Amino acid sequence: MFKSDNVDRWGMFELKLTGSGEGNPYLDVQLQAIFRFKQRTVKVDGFYDGGGTYRIRFMPDRIGEWSYVTISNQAELDGKTGVFTCVAPSKNNHGPVRIKNDVQFVYEDGTPYYPFGTTCYAWTYQDESLQQQTLATLSEAPFNKIRMCVFPKNYSFNSEEPRHFPFAGSLASGFDLTRFNPAFFAELETRMNALLELQIEADLILFHPYDKGRWGFDQLDAKTEELYLSYIIARLGAFRNVWWSLANEYDFMEEKTMPDWDRLLQYVQDNDPYVHLRSIHNGTKMYDHSSIVMYDHVKPWITHCSIQHWDVTLAAIWRGQYKKPIIIDECCYEGNVPQRWGNISGEEMVRRVWDGVSRGAYVSHGETFVHPKDEIWWAKGGRLYGESPKRIAYLRELIEAAPEGCRPLPAIRDVPTIGVQGQYYLQYYGLHQPLYRTIDLPEDGEYKAEVIDTWNMKIISEDQNLSGTCRIKMPGKPNMAIRVVKVDG
Amino acid sequence: MFKSDNVDRWGMFELKLTGSGEGNPYLDVQLQAIFRFKQRTVKVDGFYDGGGTYRIRFMPDRIGEWSYVTISNQAELDGKTGVFTCVAPSKNNHGPVRIKNDVQFVYEDGTPYYPFGTTCYAWTYQDESLQQQTLATLSEAPFNKIRMCVFPKNYSFNSEEPRHFPFAGSLASGFDLTRFNPAFFAELETRMNALLELQIEADLILFHPYDKGRWGFDQLDAKTEELYLSYIIARLGAFRNVWWSLANEYDFMEEKTMPDWDRLLQYVQDNDPYVHLRSIHNGTKMYDHSSIVMYDHVKPWITHCSIQHWDVTLAAIWRGQYKKPIIIDECCYEGNVPQRWGNISGEEMVRRVWDGVSRGAYVSHGETFVHPKDEIWWAKGGRLYGESPKRIAYLRELIEAAPEGCRPLPAIRDVPTIGVQGQYYLQYYGLHQPLYRTIDLPEDGEYKAEVIDTWNMKIISEDQNLSGTCRIKMPGKPNMAIRVVKVDG
Repeated sequence: MFKSDNVDRWGMFELKLTGSGEGNPYLDVQLQAIFRFKQRTVKVDGFYDGGGTYRIRFMPDRIGEWSYVTISNQAELDGKTGVFTCVAPSKNNHGPVRIKNDVQFVYEDGTPYYPFGTTCYAWTYQDESLQQQTLATLSEAPFNKIRMCVFPKNYSFNSEEPRHFPFAGSLASGFDLTRFNPAFFAELETRMNALLELQIEADLILFHPYDKGRWGFDQLDAKTEELYLSYIIARLGAFRNVWWSLANEYDFMEEKTMPDWDRLLQYVQDNDPYVHLRSIHNGTKMYDHSSIVMYDHVKPWITHCSIQHWDVTLAAIWRGQYKKPIIIDECCYEGNVPQRWGNISGEEMVRRVWDGVSRGAYVSHGETFVHPKDEIWWAKGGRLYGESPKRIAYLRELIEAAPEGCRPLPAIRDVPTIGVQGQYYLQYYGLHQPLYRTIDLPEDGEYKAEVIDTWNMKIISEDQNLSGTCRIKMPGKPNMAIRVVKVDG
Repeated sequence: MFKSDNVDRWGMFELKLTGSGEGNPYLDVQLQAIFRFKQRTVKVDGFYDGGGTYRIRFMPDRIGEWSYVTISNQAELDGKTGVFTCVAPSKNNHGPVRIKNDVQFVYEDGTPYYPFGTTCYAWTYQDESLQQQTLATLSEAPFNKIRMCVFPKNYSFNSEEPRHFPFAGSLASGFDLTRFNPAFFAELETRMNALLELQIEADLILFHPYDKGRWGFDQLDAKTEELYLSYIIARLGAFRNVWWSLANEYDFMEEKTMPDWDRLLQYVQDNDPYVHLRSIHNGTKMYDHSSIVMYDHVKPWITHCSIQHWDVTLAAIWRGQYKKPIIIDECCYEGNVPQRWGNISGEEMVRRVWDGVSRGAYVSHGETFVHPKDEIWWAKGGRLYGESPKRIAYLRELIEAAPEGCRPLPAIRDVPTIGVQGQYYLQYYGLHQPLYRTIDLPEDGEYKAEVIDTWNMKIISEDQNLSGTCRIKMPGKPNMAIRVVKVDG
């Protein structure tokens, strides 16, 4: 019977065991633990960490005494028991992000979570100093979610041979897909912890097409895929900030079929004891609207939509269609690379983020400026050069200051508006530049209306003591929003 | 036997006859003429012009001797014969606009026509001085097509009681829908002639919903509709610059059904001896893409699409779907009125026009700036205040300088491009701001590439002696186009 240190609620308990490294422990050793809190039990998988070390990780979600017992086909790992105390979480620990009322994100402790994501697909493959720079940049940036790949990336601006791999081996010596590389995962976990410190959710991309036969990780067989997923879940599932993004641009992986994706999503659903968020991200040829293959997000193993589309005005349709929270994780990136998906202006990036939010969705950031060493944020992290992040920070502040439960108000038909009827309204004009607008407010309340310049990040005018039908003067320029708040009477 | 003056090819021959004004000549008098050129005959309707005057108009399309004979149920109008000579057209008379190769517009003499339209729905209802100002503005503007209504308009910024009506009577005294108002049409014809002088096609809107029961012209019965259409065709059909736009926002006229529209379009098709262009223009609630009711432009009585949609990137889809020329006649207007459809910036207006053109479609202009006397171009004409017209003029010049037969080149997938393979390419980047682009040119030709700043209307850089795969430097700013021209070797 081990007696371990206290563990924060939604923190990580870890049990280290020593066994044999003979044979192939990744395949041959079965190791689990059953954790018990009062009458409730949770069964989790352990994993082999190399050098005869086995670990079992667990994220407790209730404050109080927990006990556990291990189960293994190896005598030296079997039947280990212990206890630990789960204590109140520290200040910035709100638990994993969950879904509430179908379309809201909320931390498990009830704190609202509004995703303002960014994208650094291969940042954990860069050298230490660049990774540290990425973390330093993130510490100043407005982003509370990051999309990042487990597998290495073979793509424009990102074709260097990686210094390490999730699987044992290398391109030169060949890969053993039945063995993992514990050092790779240990480093990834360091990054997960660093993100946790920054209160950033890790939207972890489990499969992607940017391999193109180079390493073969885009063409694993079903057995290897499931071995990989079970290892990932055992190692990373106990991080409260992990989200499972089954794939990036799944429809570009021609070897896989829709039943494959359904199976993989269900595998994660069945094997993740913590029910972390699950999504799958489509690609798009970006020729026209008809070339987009959208996953059917109604399927029950999808918790929220992670969409690629450059027309964020479609958010209202998707909300109605899927009845799940919408994140448009790619809508083009701020930058100037030749590729169409990576060269919109900062102004347009901000417009799309605001536009999505004003339709009850969330839109993720990405940045792709040509760089002499190809250190492009969207792939490698590093520094941000664009004009959008500080405007996104401003929007995030506004949204976090809004009352909880804001949602689209479709009765206001000609400008996207979120709010709480009778209490709060936030409407976004984007490219539209009216000289004035009329707003219908309840007759029996008293309201304050502010015109917000979303680009210059300031309130440029204010009308007090409003009620009923009111005319709001506006500057006749693009990128304006109106916020109306009920004044306590 | 009358011997009349010579008539220009596609000019207007008019025969004036005197008869009785007793009874209701609009209903009771039948009058037609058969025009003969060699072995070919064309039958056209005459019309009653008030005060005992009847007229028969005819637009001859062949050079040489024409003869005619009238047919009437009134003895004094029947059996009149005559001859005239049709001579070569004057310099700026290229005949009516036709369709060529499914998707091109061309004047009947073979001169290409690229529609750069604008919109002044009720300009002919304004007082004389404002109409003259409209014509003066048009004489300086880049527009070669204008959308304008026959019926008066009852709508925002445009609610004054009109000084005259197409039908006999007034709101106060009641309308006689079996009689027309010849003075109204005479004035309209003066405007048609003024437009002809300016080489502007009159996209004449025959029905529209902006009546809302005020005069009842949006709720005519079928018999009255057809009487009206036959009168319009008899009076205006011989203008070579008339286009028949069956309705504006037809789907907002709730009293009418799709079979009604089909019937009215076929009525015009069956009764217009000159086969002028025929279209019908949809409305849109502008909430989202799914709220748009598009007419099925495949129907054979439609010559081209006259679409309302704010997403001009859909042009390629419509081209494929309808296989007819696409004009996006409303995509929002440059202006600052509170209505969503009327308050985009000049920059965005220009972007949409360019974007449509680079996808093989045409996009019409409109302007809606708040004005102290509500003299808003889109409704009343007058002056233009916006920033888009001179940029549209610049685009029109570029397009008219391009080789004939430019069409979308879908092999270039990531930027909309029109051109003639191997000869000429024009691609538009819009919101995209690449720092460079790679273009695949034939190896065996020599090409010149120019980067065009579409907003500042100038060529900002030029690369000579190009062939094969070429990298073109660009400024990393929005609103750029690239033009590549084969150099004669």
